[in-house]
Amino acid sequence: MARSLGRIFRGFQSLGSLAFMKSELNNPSANLSLKSMVQELPSLFSSNPRDFSLPNSSWGTEMRQLYEHYNSQCEAVTDGGEEQGGLWKRLPSYNRSLKYAAAGVYLSKIIQSKARLFTRNIREPGAAFEYAVFVNKKEQRCVCIFQAGHLLEGPPGNVHGGAIATMIDTVTGTHACVHSGFVMTANLNINYCSPIPLGSTVLIESSVDKKEGRKTYISCKVTSTDGTKLHTEATALFVSVSVSHLLKG
Amino acid sequence: MARSLGRIFRGFQSLGSLAFMKSELNNPSANLSLKSMVQELPSLFSSNPRDFSLPNSSWGTEMRQLYEHYNSQCEAVTDGGEEQGGLWKRLPSYNRSLKYAAAGVYLSKIIQSKARLFTRNIREPGAAFEYAVFVNKKEQRCVCIFQAGHLLEGPPGNVHGGAIATMIDTVTGTHACVHSGFVMTANLNINYCSPIPLGSTVLIESSVDKKEGRKTYISCKVTSTDGTKLHTEATALFVSVSVSHLLKG
Repeated sequence: MARSLGRIFRGFQSLGSLAFMKSELNNPSANLSLKSMVQELPSLFSSNPRDFSLPNSSWGTEMRQLYEHYNSQCEAVTDGGEEQGGLWKRLPSYNRSLKYAAAGVYLSKIIQSKARLFTRNIREPGAAFEYAVFVNKKEQRCVCIFQAGHLLEGPPGNVHGGAIATMIDTVTGTHACVHSGFVMTANLNINYCSPIPLGSTVLIESSVDKKEGRKTYISCKVTSTDGTKLHTEATALFVSVSVSHLLKG
Repeated sequence: MARSLGRIFRGFQSLGSLAFMKSELNNPSANLSLKSMVQELPSLFSSNPRDFSLPNSSWGTEMRQLYEHYNSQCEAVTDGGEEQGGLWKRLPSYNRSLKYAAAGVYLSKIIQSKARLFTRNIREPGAAFEYAVFVNKKEQRCVCIFQAGHLLEGPPGNVHGGAIATMIDTVTGTHACVHSGFVMTANLNINYCSPIPLGSTVLIESSVDKKEGRKTYISCKVTSTDGTKLHTEATALFVSVSVSHLLKG
């Protein structure tokens, strides 16, 4: 029970959006428990949450160009709510997803009310994780454009290995969730090849290797924006979980 | 060159202290390049940096008790600067170690001046990573007491997998540095077993598995404070690097 409780909400934290999940209801591959749970959920979000994956003044030229590159290929939504065309879909990102979920354990009211998603816990634009995730379902690929802020330092002048692991967990977890519904991370295996200087922009690309029963295997590379330099490579294993009982705490 | 530049300062970031390195000069196993480099370093630190590994008002009962448990077994330093007795040694932790090091790449002056260690980038006590690392050289063990703040959320109510990876990288990197001098992380392989609720205190224990040439292998477990519940287990590989040329940029 405890094992299944914790990481099950990766979909919420990574995709960050009940709206996204509702759009998933039109996806035949979305599993039934996800569908029923979302349909039964009360309104758990504040009325106008900030989408942190939109461009802001801290974004450098590379971030803006890459954003435009992928965003221009994204599907459009008509006034009637229908999705039309586009190879890619940008996923919104909030700093808290299910603010009343207690994950089945006792948490103080203070912690519950103040908790924020780790990758979005600093509001100063450009100081920490600036990123946007795009998914290409046909090719079973995800691309994340990531600009590393000055508060992510590990080795002087470069990004901390834990911050890189955090982004890999976020991107592969998002991808696994898009592919397989709710999942929890079972393993991350990360090879660090070359450092990422603070302030730079990199690409994080993931692909689905295989799905075996409840297991989804994802691989991931972090490269320079032109793809010529490999910074980090990783594999990740996610396990699908049933979630309908989790919101009952 | 680039590969060796980035993660080489793990010693600085993890141990966080030139003072610690100077104490290492009395250690016959410290390599010559480290010794000469430290002796040649100018004063790179502010006069009274805050040691973040000391107890503060946010620490809960478990953190305080564990801190006292290990701290009471720590070696004492005489007025003459000599170390006496004690199984354990507490390692200080700062939010920036070498603030003028450029890691061989161009960084803007703004980024250089504002950069902060990822695990110490939030000054609000208790909000993020609260931890203290103790090392036991005789037993080749490290123990880290870690209290997870509300800004580390991943799955609602629980710590983000990337935040757990960050602590594992920090503790194993510190341990490898104590054991082998300057190192860079080459691999982290992490198995997530059960979630860590926000606000809780856990133990992170590492041990040296073997050293083969430039490679140091460390294993690590994250458990409940009584050791009965396994949250995460990991292996880490670090590679020793020569550092004397790095400060030249």
